Amino acid sequence: MNSFVKELIPQLIEWRRTFHALPELGFMEYITTYRIGKELEAMGFTLHVGKEALKEDSRLGLPKEADLLAHEEKAAAWGVEKEWLEKMRNGNTGLVAEWDTGKQGDHIGFRFDIDALPIKECAEESHLPSKNGFVSGEENVMHACAHDGHTTIGLGVAKYIASHSDELKGKFTLLFQPAEEGGRGARPMRDKGWLDDVDAFYSGHIGINSMDVGTIAATTKGFLASTKFDITFKGVSSHAGMHPELGKNALLAATTTANNLYGIPRHHDGVSRVNVGKLTAGSARNIISEDSFMEIELRGQTEKISNHMVERAMRIIKASAEMHDVDYSIESVGVTESMSCDEELIPKITQWCEGSEFVKEVQPVAPVSGSEDASLMMNRVQEHGGKATYMLFGTKLDYPHHHPQFDYEEEVLAVAVETYIRILKGGSGDV
Amino acid sequence: MNSFVKELIPQLIEWRRTFHALPELGFMEYITTYRIGKELEAMGFTLHVGKEALKEDSRLGLPKEADLLAHEEKAAAWGVEKEWLEKMRNGNTGLVAEWDTGKQGDHIGFRFDIDALPIKECAEESHLPSKNGFVSGEENVMHACAHDGHTTIGLGVAKYIASHSDELKGKFTLLFQPAEEGGRGARPMRDKGWLDDVDAFYSGHIGINSMDVGTIAATTKGFLASTKFDITFKGVSSHAGMHPELGKNALLAATTTANNLYGIPRHHDGVSRVNVGKLTAGSARNIISEDSFMEIELRGQTEKISNHMVERAMRIIKASAEMHDVDYSIESVGVTESMSCDEELIPKITQWCEGSEFVKEVQPVAPVSGSEDASLMMNRVQEHGGKATYMLFGTKLDYPHHHPQFDYEEEVLAVAVETYIRILKGGSGDV
Amino acid sequence: MNSFVKELIPQLIEWRRTFHALPELGFMEYITTYRIGKELEAMGFTLHVGKEALKEDSRLGLPKEADLLAHEEKAAAWGVEKEWLEKMRNGNTGLVAEWDTGKQGDHIGFRFDIDALPIKECAEESHLPSKNGFVSGEENVMHACAHDGHTTIGLGVAKYIASHSDELKGKFTLLFQPAEEGGRGARPMRDKGWLDDVDAFYSGHIGINSMDVGTIAATTKGFLASTKFDITFKGVSSHAGMHPELGKNALLAATTTANNLYGIPRHHDGVSRVNVGKLTAGSARNIISEDSFMEIELRGQTEKISNHMVERAMRIIKASAEMHDVDYSIESVGVTESMSCDEELIPKITQWCEGSEFVKEVQPVAPVSGSEDASLMMNRVQEHGGKATYMLFGTKLDYPHHHPQFDYEEEVLAVAVETYIRILKGGSGDV
Amino acid sequence: MNSFVKELIPQLIEWRRTFHALPELGFMEYITTYRIGKELEAMGFTLHVGKEALKEDSRLGLPKEADLLAHEEKAAAWGVEKEWLEKMRNGNTGLVAEWDTGKQGDHIGFRFDIDALPIKECAEESHLPSKNGFVSGEENVMHACAHDGHTTIGLGVAKYIASHSDELKGKFTLLFQPAEEGGRGARPMRDKGWLDDVDAFYSGHIGINSMDVGTIAATTKGFLASTKFDITFKGVSSHAGMHPELGKNALLAATTTANNLYGIPRHHDGVSRVNVGKLTAGSARNIISEDSFMEIELRGQTEKISNHMVERAMRIIKASAEMHDVDYSIESVGVTESMSCDEELIPKITQWCEGSEFVKEVQPVAPVSGSEDASLMMNRVQEHGGKATYMLFGTKLDYPHHHPQFDYEEEVLAVAVETYIRILKGGSGDV
Repeated sequence: MNSFVKELIPQLIEWRRTFHALPELGFMEYITTYRIGKELEAMGFTLHVGKEALKEDSRLGLPKEADLLAHEEKAAAWGVEKEWLEKMRNGNTGLVAEWDTGKQGDHIGFRFDIDALPIKECAEESHLPSKNGFVSGEENVMHACAHDGHTTIGLGVAKYIASHSDELKGKFTLLFQPAEEGGRGARPMRDKGWLDDVDAFYSGHIGINSMDVGTIAATTKGFLASTKFDITFKGVSSHAGMHPELGKNALLAATTTANNLYGIPRHHDGVSRVNVGKLTAGSARNIISEDSFMEIELRGQTEKISNHMVERAMRIIKASAEMHDVDYSIESVGVTESMSCDEELIPKITQWCEGSEFVKEVQPVAPVSGSEDASLMMNRVQEHGGKATYMLFGTKLDYPHHHPQFDYEEEVLAVAVETYIRILKGGSGDV
Repeated sequence: MNSFVKELIPQLIEWRRTFHALPELGFMEYITTYRIGKELEAMGFTLHVGKEALKEDSRLGLPKEADLLAHEEKAAAWGVEKEWLEKMRNGNTGLVAEWDTGKQGDHIGFRFDIDALPIKECAEESHLPSKNGFVSGEENVMHACAHDGHTTIGLGVAKYIASHSDELKGKFTLLFQPAEEGGRGARPMRDKGWLDDVDAFYSGHIGINSMDVGTIAATTKGFLASTKFDITFKGVSSHAGMHPELGKNALLAATTTANNLYGIPRHHDGVSRVNVGKLTAGSARNIISEDSFMEIELRGQTEKISNHMVERAMRIIKASAEMHDVDYSIESVGVTESMSCDEELIPKITQWCEGSEFVKEVQPVAPVSGSEDASLMMNRVQEHGGKATYMLFGTKLDYPHHHPQFDYEEEVLAVAVETYIRILKGGSGDV
Repeated sequence: MNSFVKELIPQLIEWRRTFHALPELGFMEYITTYRIGKELEAMGFTLHVGKEALKEDSRLGLPKEADLLAHEEKAAAWGVEKEWLEKMRNGNTGLVAEWDTGKQGDHIGFRFDIDALPIKECAEESHLPSKNGFVSGEENVMHACAHDGHTTIGLGVAKYIASHSDELKGKFTLLFQPAEEGGRGARPMRDKGWLDDVDAFYSGHIGINSMDVGTIAATTKGFLASTKFDITFKGVSSHAGMHPELGKNALLAATTTANNLYGIPRHHDGVSRVNVGKLTAGSARNIISEDSFMEIELRGQTEKISNHMVERAMRIIKASAEMHDVDYSIESVGVTESMSCDEELIPKITQWCEGSEFVKEVQPVAPVSGSEDASLMMNRVQEHGGKATYMLFGTKLDYPHHHPQFDYEEEVLAVAVETYIRILKGGSGDV
Repeated sequence: MNSFVKELIPQLIEWRRTFHALPELGFMEYITTYRIGKELEAMGFTLHVGKEALKEDSRLGLPKEADLLAHEEKAAAWGVEKEWLEKMRNGNTGLVAEWDTGKQGDHIGFRFDIDALPIKECAEESHLPSKNGFVSGEENVMHACAHDGHTTIGLGVAKYIASHSDELKGKFTLLFQPAEEGGRGARPMRDKGWLDDVDAFYSGHIGINSMDVGTIAATTKGFLASTKFDITFKGVSSHAGMHPELGKNALLAATTTANNLYGIPRHHDGVSRVNVGKLTAGSARNIISEDSFMEIELRGQTEKISNHMVERAMRIIKASAEMHDVDYSIESVGVTESMSCDEELIPKITQWCEGSEFVKEVQPVAPVSGSEDASLMMNRVQEHGGKATYMLFGTKLDYPHHHPQFDYEEEVLAVAVETYIRILKGGSGDV
């Protein structure tokens, strides 16, 4: 199988650079989804595109309708077929690809995230994508979290499945997930039921500086459950000099909320976090503010801690609104869960990767931080008795994720494809 | 009539010093009420003592039961007759004295407040009551607001009525009110109905430094409506190191309330005030506080402003409790209203006092501040079509009201008695 | 003189509508200043334009340089002569016009404010300027505070002076002031010294609903001293999930400031106000905020109260910054003072206006609220022994000042011009 | 050696009950110290009592002088010799006992804490000390944290050393430490230098419910570094109705501090805690508060986190004082450090205890929470290259530590004495 991957490398690089050059934000991956879909269609996969892949109501943090429409027009102009676009209308991007070998065996799921970030990519020569001509062509949008690579890896794995079906057993489901950033896209895919009968689930991320290309981690540890809320307060304006007593001060509702959120008590069981990242309120100096808006994020090491943070936060928001006699709304715009990789996969993955030309070392576990919405899929799989892990694929990084100069060693693509191939061969019980 | 007053002066001084030497706090004026009553009884007044004079349920800010019981025992030991004590049991102090001339004429009401303050009186020679041997005999209780004088004036006026009944017309009601401090005693007297058919109502205060003895003000301006609340929060304690997440923090409910009360917006219509005068919370350093307590006061120039302050304060208290998931209670422990003296009384009082040996000058109006619960009686009288005023009787003050060295010129007593006599003669239509 | 005004009416209306159709924001009145100047130049006034009229350093709340440049280009394109534009470069708008009769007499100053507001004018037929074709031609800029009328009145008064110089005595200074909105433009004119030897100073405003056209108020009462601050906090950002302890939270510095500003204690001496009208902070949900910005306004009935508010506010801002270890800056972007009109002008103005066909009634005083930076000029005049007043010119208003449908009865223009003419004739000692 | 302990049991129980019946609060252990000292004196130890054992200036959270004096009188009346009392005057309690075998060997330190708690002991029959007649004879003081047992264990160990000196090598220092509660007494003993040349240091606690009598833990894990502050704010009072602007509000300085302390950000490195356990402010409802007082506690898993908490707290206190223009003082009244038991002692202790009749099981580590000032001694020993551990001695507990019904199985005393004997024999190189 090494030769399969070796021969695929030029294709992997081409895919990666093509996706990198045309990044799309979460729930606006119309062109990206179409491109992925056309490749998979050619390979013979059964496809479920857009609304077929997502439970629409479960989406969180959807972009504004005007932005969606504008981007749909752009996608149409670019050449996305009308039939495809119809399936994706109104922010229903992403797709699910199924392959059934027809032989008895496990059902294995893989998840690849495909969205980009609202970051302006570095245009200087020192930045490889700029130097080599595949820098982002979109103003202020950039693949700065390696999802171009993840997408590429997914296509590589798909190609192996399609071309080696007779050697494989069981069934494979590949989820090309939109809107991972902000923890928004896993939920609608999970709620559509794709994970309900999966026996083993694999996902992962490119890049952790402490591991070289060729080193992978079989599991990770440290992701926090997170909840993202957008909060709006609506009061009544009043002339602050003339009638201060008539106003219902939405600015004060927000500032009171902010000051008290940070005071949510620590939890006996472990790590928690809270942040108010953004606050805007008011329209004019001498007007008692009628509107305010906040973006907050709550995290916890376990679901219990996470729930503690959310329950307390909602209590504070409600009470601050009541204190200032204003209306409020809380919109959930993203959620990730805590996760726990199945440790029994460690010796298996280690064994399956033995002798690989690409995977030179398998670490049992890598420490991570932040949040990841693959957690929702993993937890669903595990609830139904399946096994799941989230892996890391090592590469040197000169700049951290989400940096305008983020880039990685493209050799990691082959490592990851190889890893997944060995897993699907091993995991599906191939002999 | 000047000669009546002149001859009364030694008696006035004796009364005043006797009351001064045995001060009693609000709703604990058992001995004071008894002493007043015995004098009035001897003069022939119809008396309504204690529960006969008050609507019990309307009392606010009652002392603790243990303190009441202790003081009742003390009063019994002092010599208050059992029958009298029974009428006053459980903090029902004060009395109302009625006199009907039997002749057609107006019904005139006078109010005299009789309670003392929780202040330790100065024991030094430089303080006249100490030097002259009538300093307070009660530890930490003192007539530092001249109510000893007000009580004395009431008795002087009563003596005139009783001895000149045939020269007078109409009916006279004298209210010897308990618990003026804190705005607690006027309410239960008002609610008993004594003011409901009063045609003219007079009350006043000794002492404003800008007016000499002999100068009086026919009306006053500037008292604010006030509301006094005791607030209690009840949460759940928890070990702050072990389980910070289990506590429901009553201390934070109180501090949040305090910080937000001061931010109640100013009012277009005029002056408002807010203060948290006292706050206690918590029991031990490493325990999340289960209990907290606050004493607050809200004021407004008009009832509308006062209501604005109260409504906003209650909203803040409730929301702070909800924010920290604790229970709360708000106890009203005192209330005064804004008042508006009837200006048409100014020329009348001025005319009635003309030619007096004691009242040398009548100012139309004096500015005051603070609050006064005679306001509740005045407003009741005015609602029913009667006229009302609150007057001031000038005297030099070396120390302000409520000071441990507070004292006044005793000559003011004759001035005030004379003023009220001229009013009741003039006001009842006597020629 | 009535006939002068009567004949001037068509011209007044034309001026007013011309200014209305091309409104300019404060310190960007390049075209407005030029238009006024060309009229006055033609009349023979001695002009001091832009930098000649203002002390540059004393300007507050200057627009951004880019906006100034853009507007200067626009003015050049419109036809403002290069020489004029040079004098006004970089937000030095407004002008002062002097006229000396050469005869001994008082020096009388008049102030007319010329700037517009950032309001989108109503485009509907029901709005007279829209119906009659002189609606604002500028997007989101509107003369919604009658300064188009004030400017017009100034030109009318100037025309009278220029055409009746031989009948007049003394000296006249007309200040066409920029940037009254926000209290920004009076200061640089005052600091240039124009008021230092003025004997009598007159200014005023169109419109108070309780007075019909033809009724004027000789003085006003109730303007509050005000101070406008822009506050910036600069902290250090940090990943809120990873390293919450490394951030220096500028958002919390702002919210802490906001919550505490409203709690500045009320003042014994009278009315005070405080408002945080605008607050923006932070860039992203999971980043501890590095920047925040607030627009606040403080008011007081007297300079003493105003200083109390400012001193307390600065203390709160500083302490909030220190609490969160962030830097801060406070920029004063506007200031008005309290004012006290000279009451002795009431009988004079009343007498001067007797018999006028236009001015039918002179009220002694009108209550107002809000703030007015003519106060700075008035106080300077009074400090040097001159007299000053701020008047009101009645008109029915269907919508309040600063409303997108604000409009007034154009008949008021003649009333105001007539008033000022009678004042300058009377005040300069003409018989 | 088992027989030594077995024979000692009646003595252990007697000691324990004697100490239990006469508990003394921290820095007031005059009688307790004297009793311990007399026993040790009889055994032949070299003693350093009170001021000889403590660095006076290093004491934190000293009781009020009046309380100390009263208790010294009580101790004198009880029978504490004058010479002993002189050494302990003014809260210098506790003692250090030294024993030198004269033979080459390690210097081993043991610490036993001797103070009681301000808790009213349960008087009911169901509470064993009450039933058996050794309930606390002191009102509101109780040995509810087993220090009576710790003291007893110390005497038992001492008796062994004194009676088996010829079998032992090296040197032994026994620290009978005052005022462990609040983290106040370890510091002055450490600063006196007793730990500076100790090779191995042992301390421990009775009772953890998950371990039966006979089970001990060789090390513990989880104590947090803690800092206890008493905070005082001093402002200026003012009549809240009359002159709200003149006050400098100490109550608001405290409430602002409280609200912001809870918002100190979490730390990347681990657990932190903050609590305001007590807050009192103000004297009267309508007076702006001049005084306020708070008791707070800060904790951190590491010294770095602890310092983060302390630095932020001090910043908040200072800024809150500045915000309200009041003075403040911060008094450190207790400090504990984080600790790390030397893991290499685990196998040694396990081995030394093998075959014991009393010590049936040695667990390597027990999880704990809370704080312990033995940490200061341990860290000093480890800094100088010594080894140290803090152990637990299992016993069933029907009620938790610090509960009015706290009690433990007295059999644990023998287990602990046996453990320390085996350690000192093993640790000093005995053969």
